[in-house]
Amino acid sequence: MNTEIIAVGSELLLGQIVNTNARFISSKLAELGIGVYFHTVVGDNAKRLLSAIQVAETRADIIIFTGGLGPTKDDLTKETIADYLKVDLVFHDEAIQHIEDHYKRVGRVMTENNRKQALVFDGADVLPNQHGMAPGIVLRKNNKTYMLLPGPPSEMEPMFANFAAPYLAKLANETNTIHSRVLRFFGIGESVLETKISDLLENQTNPTIAPLASDGEVTLRITAKADFESAMQMLAAVEKSIIERVGEFFYGYDSTTLIEKCVHLLKQKGLTVTAAESLTGGLFQQEITSCAGASEIFSGGMVTYSNDVKHQNLGVRESTIRQFGAVSGECAEEMAICVREKFQADIGVSFTGVAGPDELEGKPVGTVFIGFSFKDGDSFVKQLKLGRIRSMNRVSAVKNALYCLIKHLEK
Amino acid sequence: MNTEIIAVGSELLLGQIVNTNARFISSKLAELGIGVYFHTVVGDNAKRLLSAIQVAETRADIIIFTGGLGPTKDDLTKETIADYLKVDLVFHDEAIQHIEDHYKRVGRVMTENNRKQALVFDGADVLPNQHGMAPGIVLRKNNKTYMLLPGPPSEMEPMFANFAAPYLAKLANETNTIHSRVLRFFGIGESVLETKISDLLENQTNPTIAPLASDGEVTLRITAKADFESAMQMLAAVEKSIIERVGEFFYGYDSTTLIEKCVHLLKQKGLTVTAAESLTGGLFQQEITSCAGASEIFSGGMVTYSNDVKHQNLGVRESTIRQFGAVSGECAEEMAICVREKFQADIGVSFTGVAGPDELEGKPVGTVFIGFSFKDGDSFVKQLKLGRIRSMNRVSAVKNALYCLIKHLEK
Repeated sequence: MNTEIIAVGSELLLGQIVNTNARFISSKLAELGIGVYFHTVVGDNAKRLLSAIQVAETRADIIIFTGGLGPTKDDLTKETIADYLKVDLVFHDEAIQHIEDHYKRVGRVMTENNRKQALVFDGADVLPNQHGMAPGIVLRKNNKTYMLLPGPPSEMEPMFANFAAPYLAKLANETNTIHSRVLRFFGIGESVLETKISDLLENQTNPTIAPLASDGEVTLRITAKADFESAMQMLAAVEKSIIERVGEFFYGYDSTTLIEKCVHLLKQKGLTVTAAESLTGGLFQQEITSCAGASEIFSGGMVTYSNDVKHQNLGVRESTIRQFGAVSGECAEEMAICVREKFQADIGVSFTGVAGPDELEGKPVGTVFIGFSFKDGDSFVKQLKLGRIRSMNRVSAVKNALYCLIKHLEK
Repeated sequence: MNTEIIAVGSELLLGQIVNTNARFISSKLAELGIGVYFHTVVGDNAKRLLSAIQVAETRADIIIFTGGLGPTKDDLTKETIADYLKVDLVFHDEAIQHIEDHYKRVGRVMTENNRKQALVFDGADVLPNQHGMAPGIVLRKNNKTYMLLPGPPSEMEPMFANFAAPYLAKLANETNTIHSRVLRFFGIGESVLETKISDLLENQTNPTIAPLASDGEVTLRITAKADFESAMQMLAAVEKSIIERVGEFFYGYDSTTLIEKCVHLLKQKGLTVTAAESLTGGLFQQEITSCAGASEIFSGGMVTYSNDVKHQNLGVRESTIRQFGAVSGECAEEMAICVREKFQADIGVSFTGVAGPDELEGKPVGTVFIGFSFKDGDSFVKQLKLGRIRSMNRVSAVKNALYCLIKHLEK
């Protein structure tokens, strides 16, 4: 059973956006053990879309479309496929209700072309869109599965994770039984990790072990082909061997993120956190508050970008900044202590450093100090030497802080 | 004359990397006025690559391949095409020299499989690789142009810009070219916008107008097919008609983001900004500081998540929170004023609201108040009714604030 992913949208062919949907879906299908042989991108043009469908039918069992489900005239994926497969388009009551509710809630007038988004194939399965208007549609016909998903990643990704993936997993389960588990690591590079488990990588065919690096994290996907019970035993045995070798860098399973893990541990231990952010400009606090229920563990904090604000608003001594600079372990430690006291939290975290593009205080881009202060009076500083890219340095600093906190909380 | 871009690499089909090469090449071809009708991605598999080439030949004049030119066994683009087109592979002297020089320079031993990278089609044009080993190759045969480029973006992008683009520009020079411009809108839905310009959409064939919605913004792409001067006149005329109808929602051109536009205006006017964020938890400040040189316009601010912090650390009166609630226009306004005074900025912005998933103070999810305070004593509050999704509400609140600021600064 193999898949072709067809992205529909002239903006892709003009190079205005990049086809992240194909990557997202492919990675999720890889986890399910479903093969992908081709990606295709085609513009908002019925004739060329039709030709792409006909090519895909010669080489795939499942055809997943993204894009072209919107309300406007150039959104023609649904209409083109309906016409080609000779199926009727009918209004889906729940989808209409969903669209009407949205317009009522935001107090805007619903225009007629919005109803078009509630049209689905007669007899098809419908995937709810919890982040937008147009629902997903799955039609099984002529031994093929046609799945239509919305184009905006903010709608497509949660729809795929919550509805499309389980649907396809069920489909795949009719033919084979693949079980997989992802182990997540931080603070170790892909090649070092690979070297440390090279004996396992060489001798494993079932389960297989696949390393993947992205955004400064490395994951290992272990995949076993067997009935459920044997597969679980096989996965557990391989996981044990991996943890013996690189357990110190392990932090979670599957799609657990560092921030989720960290917030979970803070809640579990009933601890509160605050932060004073220079380098990261609010990114750490925005990550913390992105989790629902963050108010349990976070009441507020500061963004202390300039030296004046670090001194006057946060309370770092002028002499510390004069003597060591704002980009220093001494300043980071004092920032963490000051902000913890100011916001009466159990843990204070601080970020100072040189994000780039220019150096600061004669210190090179990538110099980072993260301060930690705890209620019992303990405090420490973590120094990092990161790269040259501003955005990556900020993200990496936050991830390192979260990882340090996780390891500290797990002690 | 139209193009198909074929990316070769199993890592793309596994979702390990995203096909940024297709985007890069497409955007460059759009600038040259060369059309792209399809993107295809295929794995490191000769049989399936061959089938992709055969499909592409039925629908494109130029076929551009990326990837599969490396030294290892799974790099088979060149060999597959040579075999299919019945052309010989011959060593290219300059390319061999280039590879040998590289190994001499880094002091490593050159292995035999590295020589494979210097093989090119007999009689083909060769594009130098200034950032890696494998050169690019262009072969014109059977009225088609086959262009092979390396996969790593760090090699492909400069090769394309320096050698492939001029090559293709020369090829395309005989025909009319395509010129396009993107207009960016905020605060208006795609369907309403389309309704307001429906007369233009219906009557336009050259230039064409294509709407696109993503992440709460709508763009209109205007595309004209003509020689440069006529195209510019056509674009300007259509733009004028559009701005007459929906100009109040227009904020910028092409890939300009709200945050870039806002920071640019603040710098231009020499104004500083600060923020007190409840709802958005630091997202606004993290966006501001994501721009290089943010220290010119931002020295710091606060994340005031709990009511205690709003009162004790920021200075909002207890009576305001008691009487109106923390989620209120009154509280938002006071937050903006307090934070502007505390951080001695020209403009104070505040965010309070119900991000979700649960309601707060009896107010429904999606209720948002954004406060603005200015140095001249002026202040106002913008109220929004957003949706039910926490992450989208936070992002939308920040975008609305940026849009308000832009419109205020442009006055």
